[in-house]
Amino acid sequence: MDIKVVRQILEWNQDCHNELQKELNDKKVLMVNVMGSPGAGKTTFITNVINNLKREFKIGVIEGDIAGKIDAEKIAAMNIPVVQLNTDGACHIEAMSIKNILPDFDLEDLDIIFIENIGNLVCPAEFDIGEDLKVVILSIPEGDDKVEKYPLMFMKSSAMVLSKYDMKDYFKFDEDRVKDNALKLNKDIKFFPVNSTSGYGVEEFTQWLRKYIKK
Amino acid sequence: MDIKVVRQILEWNQDCHNELQKELNDKKVLMVNVMGSPGAGKTTFITNVINNLKREFKIGVIEGDIAGKIDAEKIAAMNIPVVQLNTDGACHIEAMSIKNILPDFDLEDLDIIFIENIGNLVCPAEFDIGEDLKVVILSIPEGDDKVEKYPLMFMKSSAMVLSKYDMKDYFKFDEDRVKDNALKLNKDIKFFPVNSTSGYGVEEFTQWLRKYIKK
Repeated sequence: MDIKVVRQILEWNQDCHNELQKELNDKKVLMVNVMGSPGAGKTTFITNVINNLKREFKIGVIEGDIAGKIDAEKIAAMNIPVVQLNTDGACHIEAMSIKNILPDFDLEDLDIIFIENIGNLVCPAEFDIGEDLKVVILSIPEGDDKVEKYPLMFMKSSAMVLSKYDMKDYFKFDEDRVKDNALKLNKDIKFFPVNSTSGYGVEEFTQWLRKYIKK
Repeated sequence: MDIKVVRQILEWNQDCHNELQKELNDKKVLMVNVMGSPGAGKTTFITNVINNLKREFKIGVIEGDIAGKIDAEKIAAMNIPVVQLNTDGACHIEAMSIKNILPDFDLEDLDIIFIENIGNLVCPAEFDIGEDLKVVILSIPEGDDKVEKYPLMFMKSSAMVLSKYDMKDYFKFDEDRVKDNALKLNKDIKFFPVNSTSGYGVEEFTQWLRKYIKK
């Protein structure tokens, strides 16, 4: 019974994802779904990327959280249009929620929307939500076995950001293990080591992202 | 529709949880459900606690993972009976899975079973799985805003282990913020700062845990 119902939701979700992609292509807006564990550094990474791109491009953000608006407040403080999506207990964002939120943005006046998904390495990977690109952030303190344990997330992501990269030696993080395992699942995945405190690596990521901007 | 189905599963899960609790009380086995984000340090913490208790008590482990048996191999290497539960994509353990696994252990010959849940701060908190105690591990690098963002987990846990505690200053982790917010949700929650590399704090946790051992 469980499995049957999940399938129904996933099919409905996929229809909604396809509709969103069509609308975003018509309006030439790139949508990026940023995923990762709780505390991987998603918000800080997004704010760094926005700072790198905001002089050239118009950017909006959808902040997903189970409760509260801590992250949305950080984005709003940068004068970036942001909508806080509270899932009220749900562990991932679904396409229908993004469809409901999209009218809150002026798509004609936007180049990129970043969605910060719920902190979770599991369920968000199962739901396409209208995005052009999925980006997973794996922080060094989480350890080098995460690709093996949570394969779907890395299979479906176009890029893996290795955040808190300055901690690599301290946590004896085996970067080759992570990369080898990710490439086995997904031969096209790109890797971006980043230290959000110093800004290290953010420029390389935005260079890659620019290729997908539609306007 | 989504919500209705989740309720049905939860009711069924709760019946199964109650059955498990009865059996474990009859056999005087303490069951501890260890939860936390991916990479919070659950396995290392459990191995440290086992090392502290194994001379006095007989211990078994159920290792929950979406895929693979990396963690179960670490436990087996300690000569501790362990069963690997692969959820095959599911983001939490349900009581029925534990019911299916329990016959693999000789309950007459066990004092404690530790369950390492799937790395996830969200869904595992929604499912009681026969345990006497829920313990949440929050690692310092995850940041001090996690209680506000994932309240249910902290509401339902009897103890919070603050792992990778040696990183507290490096990550500017505000311990009072975490404790104050957790106590607002759950006035009885206990806090245990731990550094699993040095073993710091493990003894305090096991002293607390001993009070619940049934034999």
